Amino acid sequence: MAAQPKLHYPNGRGRMESVRWVLAAAGVEFDEEFLETKEQLQKLQDGNHLLFQQVPMVEIDGMKLVQTRSILHYIADKHHLFGRDLKERTLIDMYVEGTLDLLELIIMHPFLKPDDQQKEVVNMAQKAIIRYFPVFEKVLRDHGQRFLVGNQLSLADIILLQTILALEEKIPNILSAFPHLQEFTVKISNIPTIKKFLEPGSKKKPPPDDIYVRTVYNIFMP
Amino acid sequence: MAAQPKLHYPNGRGRMESVRWVLAAAGVEFDEEFLETKEQLQKLQDGNHLLFQQVPMVEIDGMKLVQTRSILHYIADKHHLFGRDLKERTLIDMYVEGTLDLLELIIMHPFLKPDDQQKEVVNMAQKAIIRYFPVFEKVLRDHGQRFLVGNQLSLADIILLQTILALEEKIPNILSAFPHLQEFTVKISNIPTIKKFLEPGSKKKPPPDDIYVRTVYNIFMP
Repeated sequence: MAAQPKLHYPNGRGRMESVRWVLAAAGVEFDEEFLETKEQLQKLQDGNHLLFQQVPMVEIDGMKLVQTRSILHYIADKHHLFGRDLKERTLIDMYVEGTLDLLELIIMHPFLKPDDQQKEVVNMAQKAIIRYFPVFEKVLRDHGQRFLVGNQLSLADIILLQTILALEEKIPNILSAFPHLQEFTVKISNIPTIKKFLEPGSKKKPPPDDIYVRTVYNIFMP
Repeated sequence: MAAQPKLHYPNGRGRMESVRWVLAAAGVEFDEEFLETKEQLQKLQDGNHLLFQQVPMVEIDGMKLVQTRSILHYIADKHHLFGRDLKERTLIDMYVEGTLDLLELIIMHPFLKPDDQQKEVVNMAQKAIIRYFPVFEKVLRDHGQRFLVGNQLSLADIILLQTILALEEKIPNILSAFPHLQEFTVKISNIPTIKKFLEPGSKKKPPPDDIYVRTVYNIFMP
């Protein structure tokens, strides 16, 4: 029997949180090895465990996967979260790429200078409200289905829900003009595997705090 | 019969050049509609031709594809440049993602302040020589094959060759410590479709110049 996947990353969201989301949604149990020091990272690098010297890294099915998107794609492929044909796959891919562009702003936010953080919340809100959410609102309204693509759960739904919930932590009313996205958020959150991930005690990580930011600087700054 | 793909982007490399490379390598003829003004971009946006309001956009097989990676993935899938199974696909995906991280530095370089451009060339060279090229050198040395994955041409070979040639324009001896990558560069450059793309008169774009930089600012700056 294959071992559970093991995730190598600091104890916080960052670029690994999407991987945790997708594994959890697929109902896959996983272990985590939290990086806390520069020496731990160095040890992974020296042992040739990191293809490009970077985390996230996930040990899974005998491979050591790196690069966030590649990890997400592999898990999505394996667990049938990538559509039924190339057309569905391509839609899912585009929706995920757009959402990841928005999520990237959220991931980088705690590392901005304090003065820039408030301005960046405004920028994020605008990007979400003007560029990204109208697209998904329209998709859901037009086809009237629960999921974004092909009437079944996909990587696109999972990453969008992750991004919506992370944004709502900063901007509680961010969905006020998007009734279909509100409904989507409730429905996808109630899928049993995802519901469990959203409950206390799961491997979902809390919003980044000062300790997380300091840990990341300690590990990754030269 | 399906129409030729049509590419919408300014007349320069930027994020579209990888798409041109992959289409050319696959032997696919394509048309280009060059964006030259803010009004042309606005027209595409107003007509709902750009899912997230951004280019690159490629009209292909009745779809309007956006997001560089999604476009590359679709073309690679369609033209059998993405491996024979999920394991090969995942290797190709990781190699492409790493190479795109390096290529991103090259794409952004002409938009840096003049003072920062020289420093960034040093950074790029270091990243290439320390982080990325040793990985690919070792892959080629270890399996002794011509291509990076599965003994056949894939998206990974194409994006790596694009990135090597773009770097060599700035740093001519960048491959001096990598004999297998030198051989790779020669061999992949001689694949007939790629050879043709590298010859004068193809749709390959020249290195970014001041006119390209000004055009991009004119179109995309608010």
